[in-house]
Amino acid sequence: MDTDKILLDHGSGGKISHALISAMMLPVFQNPILEKLNDGAELRIGAERLAFSTDSYVVDPIFFPGGNIGDLAVNGTVNDLAMCGAVPLYLSVGMIIEEGLGISDLRAILHQMGVAAKSAGVQIVTGDTKVVPRGAADKIFINTSGVGRIPDGVEVSGQRAKPGDRILLSGTIADHGIAILTRREGMMFDAPIVSDTAALNHLVQRMLAVDPDIHVLRDPTRGGLGTTLNEIAGQSRVGIRIMEDRIPVRPEVAALCELLGFDPLYIANEGKLVAFISPERADAVLAAVRDDEHGKDACFIGEVVSEPAGRVFMQTGIGGMRIVDMLTGEQLPRIC
Amino acid sequence: MDTDKILLDHGSGGKISHALISAMMLPVFQNPILEKLNDGAELRIGAERLAFSTDSYVVDPIFFPGGNIGDLAVNGTVNDLAMCGAVPLYLSVGMIIEEGLGISDLRAILHQMGVAAKSAGVQIVTGDTKVVPRGAADKIFINTSGVGRIPDGVEVSGQRAKPGDRILLSGTIADHGIAILTRREGMMFDAPIVSDTAALNHLVQRMLAVDPDIHVLRDPTRGGLGTTLNEIAGQSRVGIRIMEDRIPVRPEVAALCELLGFDPLYIANEGKLVAFISPERADAVLAAVRDDEHGKDACFIGEVVSEPAGRVFMQTGIGGMRIVDMLTGEQLPRIC
Repeated sequence: MDTDKILLDHGSGGKISHALISAMMLPVFQNPILEKLNDGAELRIGAERLAFSTDSYVVDPIFFPGGNIGDLAVNGTVNDLAMCGAVPLYLSVGMIIEEGLGISDLRAILHQMGVAAKSAGVQIVTGDTKVVPRGAADKIFINTSGVGRIPDGVEVSGQRAKPGDRILLSGTIADHGIAILTRREGMMFDAPIVSDTAALNHLVQRMLAVDPDIHVLRDPTRGGLGTTLNEIAGQSRVGIRIMEDRIPVRPEVAALCELLGFDPLYIANEGKLVAFISPERADAVLAAVRDDEHGKDACFIGEVVSEPAGRVFMQTGIGGMRIVDMLTGEQLPRIC
Repeated sequence: MDTDKILLDHGSGGKISHALISAMMLPVFQNPILEKLNDGAELRIGAERLAFSTDSYVVDPIFFPGGNIGDLAVNGTVNDLAMCGAVPLYLSVGMIIEEGLGISDLRAILHQMGVAAKSAGVQIVTGDTKVVPRGAADKIFINTSGVGRIPDGVEVSGQRAKPGDRILLSGTIADHGIAILTRREGMMFDAPIVSDTAALNHLVQRMLAVDPDIHVLRDPTRGGLGTTLNEIAGQSRVGIRIMEDRIPVRPEVAALCELLGFDPLYIANEGKLVAFISPERADAVLAAVRDDEHGKDACFIGEVVSEPAGRVFMQTGIGGMRIVDMLTGEQLPRIC
């Protein structure tokens, strides 16, 4: 492997991404906030606890079943803030546009950003637009950054998973990544597979209303559920056991994954979350999640154990046990 | 002109950029914070007044005399926050990297970001890295967003220029744009023209210590001093008069501008500011600016008048008067 140059794998969200961040970025920018490696940073400014997060979107194609790069960018940062336990309030938008992008495409993207922001209840308050010559970018890239307020008493962090916690998954996995893939490859179906892109902040507020002490929240985007669970197991130094037959996957998504040789555990989601909850509160939280439009298929997929720390195991459908590692290598570039 | 597609001019920071923002973005994202069109948004969260800003950097080349895309990105957002009168505190970094970028180049960029952040006294607390296939971006694009705290009593805004205000410029203009241009074109000089990229937040704090009621602060980046003054004249509905022979331009920069047919008034700066100050406080502020390493060449370049509102006039070196309009068209793409 050529290690002098950046590879697509460095952007996978998987093992090599984590290695890059650990080796190159943490030492340069060293500070305890960044080192927590949560979806967003928790800041204290005066009396306020704020969440602050950023994400750049480079999805290809920019229009796909269920959304476009615009609502994806708004929902993604709204979700990163929500996964800090914050109420998302304000977003910035930084666009890098390739010369020649159709004005009508830009209008459609902006329109969808406006719809998504309104639906999530956030305001887009500042922005920046750069245009680069043809060939120097691919149509449009959008960065959204966001600020939210963390309510008193909420302490959500990837470091807080505890043995005994039940692990809630809010719905089916792999819908977004497979929707992008099918559109990119030009596969046509009677009923297209649709991205799950959605803002989860209202769902999170429902959950925190039932249990303000939810330990961990995270949305399994790049790298998929498998990578996300590994991150949490590592940050909290706990073991995680999940059961394959509890994880909901739409039959058409499962069929395509099988056909194409993809493991749905590593395919990106853009409207799902996992939550780690004390066993006493778990059933009440699940009931609240199922009441929400984005949580109808929610279920418990496993639990936290003390050993082996940092490892994720899955009991397979036929009763065996296998290690679920982080994603290694990039299987689907530019899905977000 | 093909108006169906995005043109390089849309990213110029000049007239057509403003038209794009006014026509397409403000209606979709409508809210009073965005509509102020300052360098950053002013937010109220609980008891705190915060500034929030974003900028994407697509400069070409990524290494240039005086800096690289890394410190440029940190300084740029630090400055946008400072121009809101805020003390910059926290930055996010979103990188879009083209597959194949040299790891050593990335390391040099990250190093320079760390140096710039330390020098400005800000923390980089959250980030995101995307990698796109070769040809889908040009080496590296960096978005930085930032959060700062606005001290009580400070009310800096592009809408607060008042007739009688004196206009302070902190130093020579056009250094950054011309430094980028000469490097891009491979022009070699015994003493290269060096970008002025620098964080101005400490300078702004000195200024606000002398006069907490400074009316307007802005850094004349894309579109240059000419465009910035037009923005302020428009936002405040005042006239602006400047004197050409007061505006400092390095002789070698002036010579190159003349040779290449560029007007230094429209060339980007990355370490300069303009301030609009009540006449009673102006001399004291100027003295404070000149005490700062980034303000040694500071001077007054003109003043605010009541009529004609929205217009900028310049008394030329030979005594005539000419209108200074916003930049029309893009003269130097990808300078930041």
